[in-house]
Amino acid sequence: MSELRQDIATKRWVIVAHERARRPHQFVKQVGVRQEPDHRDDCPFCEGNETQTPPEVYAWREQSEPNQPGWKVRVVPNKFAALSPAAKWGVQHPEIFTTISGYGAHEVIIETPQHNQTLATLPQEQVELVLQAVLQRMRTLAQDEHIAFVQVFRNHGAAAGTSLVHPHSQLIATPIVPTNIREEIEEARRFYDDRVHCVYCYLLKKEQEQNERIVMATDRYVVLAPFASRFPFELMVLPRRHAASFIFDAKREDLAPLADVLRRTLLLLYHAANNPDYNAVLHTAPIRDSCLDYYHWHIEIMPRLTTPAGFELGTGIYITTAIPEETAAYLREQAQRVG
Amino acid sequence: MSELRQDIATKRWVIVAHERARRPHQFVKQVGVRQEPDHRDDCPFCEGNETQTPPEVYAWREQSEPNQPGWKVRVVPNKFAALSPAAKWGVQHPEIFTTISGYGAHEVIIETPQHNQTLATLPQEQVELVLQAVLQRMRTLAQDEHIAFVQVFRNHGAAAGTSLVHPHSQLIATPIVPTNIREEIEEARRFYDDRVHCVYCYLLKKEQEQNERIVMATDRYVVLAPFASRFPFELMVLPRRHAASFIFDAKREDLAPLADVLRRTLLLLYHAANNPDYNAVLHTAPIRDSCLDYYHWHIEIMPRLTTPAGFELGTGIYITTAIPEETAAYLREQAQRVG
Repeated sequence: MSELRQDIATKRWVIVAHERARRPHQFVKQVGVRQEPDHRDDCPFCEGNETQTPPEVYAWREQSEPNQPGWKVRVVPNKFAALSPAAKWGVQHPEIFTTISGYGAHEVIIETPQHNQTLATLPQEQVELVLQAVLQRMRTLAQDEHIAFVQVFRNHGAAAGTSLVHPHSQLIATPIVPTNIREEIEEARRFYDDRVHCVYCYLLKKEQEQNERIVMATDRYVVLAPFASRFPFELMVLPRRHAASFIFDAKREDLAPLADVLRRTLLLLYHAANNPDYNAVLHTAPIRDSCLDYYHWHIEIMPRLTTPAGFELGTGIYITTAIPEETAAYLREQAQRVG
Repeated sequence: MSELRQDIATKRWVIVAHERARRPHQFVKQVGVRQEPDHRDDCPFCEGNETQTPPEVYAWREQSEPNQPGWKVRVVPNKFAALSPAAKWGVQHPEIFTTISGYGAHEVIIETPQHNQTLATLPQEQVELVLQAVLQRMRTLAQDEHIAFVQVFRNHGAAAGTSLVHPHSQLIATPIVPTNIREEIEEARRFYDDRVHCVYCYLLKKEQEQNERIVMATDRYVVLAPFASRFPFELMVLPRRHAASFIFDAKREDLAPLADVLRRTLLLLYHAANNPDYNAVLHTAPIRDSCLDYYHWHIEIMPRLTTPAGFELGTGIYITTAIPEETAAYLREQAQRVG
């Protein structure tokens, strides 16, 4: 029989449709992974093609000049930026048809010069350089008084909304706190008001007690198949230490352990689910909201193996035919196989 | 320059990315419409195949027997129901890992015996029979004290999450009020608290004054390209008369004008955007919430010509490259051409 499950942190409901439940491996698409060369002349993110992007705003280089080859990670404004620091700041018509000028930033983090890698297949040190770039850019953007939030996200594959193969993440700095983040924080605050406890810390404790949905655990991080997963193979990377803001709490020495767990999680997904298309998002406290006690930064990984339809769009309730406990068991088993 | 736009009713933000804006016709996929026969022996929704579905819960027939040919509209439980009235009602573990048993209903409204039609291409009288079936089933399900909400939705095409060609809509009756509906109502209540006015009635008045985004207007309904559209060709059908609940306010004589505007809107989309895949949802007041003064039922039509990516999933803010005012102008022009 089906059941409705509620996520304790967001109060979001899902329907787990046991009637049509499929085993985890049945969601895996049996298509071959397309072979790509390690360099393409027509790829704007490949080394040597630096002039095909707007000038870089950050790069990790040993000695070469800006916008020249010789980098390991490079951050550039998105050529078709959704928001831009060049826009004049302004709010119009706050009574009806409210608009804010497109002020903000939209940047691409080019994760490696190598065209045919992905975050999962890069060495840990390279993933660490990517996280360093992200953290650095977030901190710089956070200085701007008109920036309220920075959303870091990764689109992998066509079903996840990208056609660019070259490994990259993106960030968009927005002049407002996005609705989803606002709601997550609001729910976390309500929980704290009731119990004087961070809901994510509480969740972590309960998940460890039950030990049914934990996929991977390190000294500092736990990777979960969330109880109210919306997508097959959905995963959450949760730091054990309470911290609301990735931007202000993460220290440079925290990045190696995070790179390790992130890389291993994505590599597991890569092997166990045949390199699925996915979106990953970093949820962290808004820049100027004081939610230190009750919010807790985390990463959500959402494979795109199914298509949300009218019911999901209308209600916000996802129907899922993947059972999170089975997903976790399957991934733990696969982790042993791939080592 | 891009701009952020806020929807006054839901407070949802979108980014209209003028930098990469495309003209409405550029979103239209230039693929031929697949030819389908008017009957298929292997389609469970075709006439003569009534035994391939669970027994019907409603049908419009002139004289034939239940579950036999001779119907014009037929409603059956979904064979792989997400929720079912056979489930035992119950809430478990309300402290953490909350679940509700899968109690509810999941039904398919087979809109015509003809396999190769769609709601857009059916005669108005047939669309009226479909609406009658929907209304009747919603009213019956509303009698059940454990049902809190009925979501009616239509998935058209593979990108909208359906593989079944035969024209059908669905409904899912849920034991909870879905988050999206709860939030819409909450925002509408806030607006009413401030201004003692329904936000949808206010929006209608302002949209008529501006007359920039109205696609079609009849005596009783207005069809809009919403100011903060999330999707190219997104449309909203709004009744002029204030009414919170489609279930309790619609009278049988209201169904012909609604069938007329709905059919004409979908036919316009069919011709102007080359039969796009889309989801349509009916938003109406929850069954036992008294939001009579401030909520206003409506239909949302969401073509699936673009793929939401990590930013949308993470923030809830959609980036759109379609400009609603241009969409409305294009559709008005096309309406004149197709008559």
